[in-house]
Amino acid sequence: MASRFSLKIARTRGYGAEVVLYDRFNENREAIASKIASETGAVVVPPFDDPYVIAGQGTVGLEIAEQLLETGATADVLICPASGGGLMAGVALAFETLSPKTALYCAEPAGFDDHALSLKAGERVSLTPTTASLCDALMSPSPGAVTFPINQPRLAGAVDASDEEVLAAMAFAFEHLKLVIEPGGAAALAALLAGRIALNGRTAVIVASGGNVDPATFVRALTA
Amino acid sequence: MASRFSLKIARTRGYGAEVVLYDRFNENREAIASKIASETGAVVVPPFDDPYVIAGQGTVGLEIAEQLLETGATADVLICPASGGGLMAGVALAFETLSPKTALYCAEPAGFDDHALSLKAGERVSLTPTTASLCDALMSPSPGAVTFPINQPRLAGAVDASDEEVLAAMAFAFEHLKLVIEPGGAAALAALLAGRIALNGRTAVIVASGGNVDPATFVRALTA
Repeated sequence: MASRFSLKIARTRGYGAEVVLYDRFNENREAIASKIASETGAVVVPPFDDPYVIAGQGTVGLEIAEQLLETGATADVLICPASGGGLMAGVALAFETLSPKTALYCAEPAGFDDHALSLKAGERVSLTPTTASLCDALMSPSPGAVTFPINQPRLAGAVDASDEEVLAAMAFAFEHLKLVIEPGGAAALAALLAGRIALNGRTAVIVASGGNVDPATFVRALTA
Repeated sequence: MASRFSLKIARTRGYGAEVVLYDRFNENREAIASKIASETGAVVVPPFDDPYVIAGQGTVGLEIAEQLLETGATADVLICPASGGGLMAGVALAFETLSPKTALYCAEPAGFDDHALSLKAGERVSLTPTTASLCDALMSPSPGAVTFPINQPRLAGAVDASDEEVLAAMAFAFEHLKLVIEPGGAAALAALLAGRIALNGRTAVIVASGGNVDPATFVRALTA
């Protein structure tokens, strides 16, 4: 499986970073990061569960609202990929003010539907992954402690997408949008194209975020 | 060779058009289009050799100038793909007013360097293609009668790119820009990456125009 992540690793090293690998299924990256930070004095920048990170990711929501205004469109539905839920939370906060009538959904990879489970349970549920996913950016086992209280009251629901649906969405983006989207970034588009939400003429906004995909995986999407 | 063009054909038909195929090497598309127009009353929209088409394509130059202003950057060099030279002519006219110090180059596929030959000869030269090119959008055998008088006094030169260099540029755009660019649209980027113009610290603008590339050709770029 290492090859699938090689582009991300190479690009991160290209920015001058030291990359520390770990076993996603048997180790805890937060503990590893915390240990490195305490030993070196480095600052931990969490991927999602942090107010500043959520605020930063929320600028995606501000940009969408700006573009809706420019085009005179109204978003009835918005779907955004979710792992720990940081991007979703930031967008939800922006939309609460700027587009309060939009029904917000997060999109998760099949088998990593911890937001769907948590929304149903009314509290944060942590799942034990029983499968891998092409969406390597969306494999957090549970919603965040900071993000979930933001998302819970603001989301209309959660939808999911299989690897095959994600690959089809990447091919759709290639053909129609001329964009390179990584699997996790294509989850919301995948869920929409797979009909998880019946639009019935309503206008939907899709967040397609992230283009760090290895050529081999992209080739797989184009030849599926 | 038909398969390489199948996406363009399918998409054009998808917009409701009737697609009439011809033999690029043994037939004249202008004559075919003119005959159809006279029989049906349709209006011929030339791909490049028309003042309105040049003006429309020139909005690319307006957008570049706007973005340069927004970012506070100055373009020392601009490279733009050229077939008949319409996009290049439109951009050249826009830059004459908005960025007059920029050195303008057009980029052509190797073997289809009719602008290079024409600029050298000081008049429009028509070449007889001795080779095919991946850049199916850039295979005009000569500069246009309308475009060349615009381009001739405004271009600093013409550069070319081989199929291999074009494929490498498409892969570069995939990895770094997250954009799907068709071969012809990647010609300027290809020429730059291949070092056809020594920048020596200068700032270059590349026009990357067109994403109508078949999956098979894109896969070839990613696996080269």
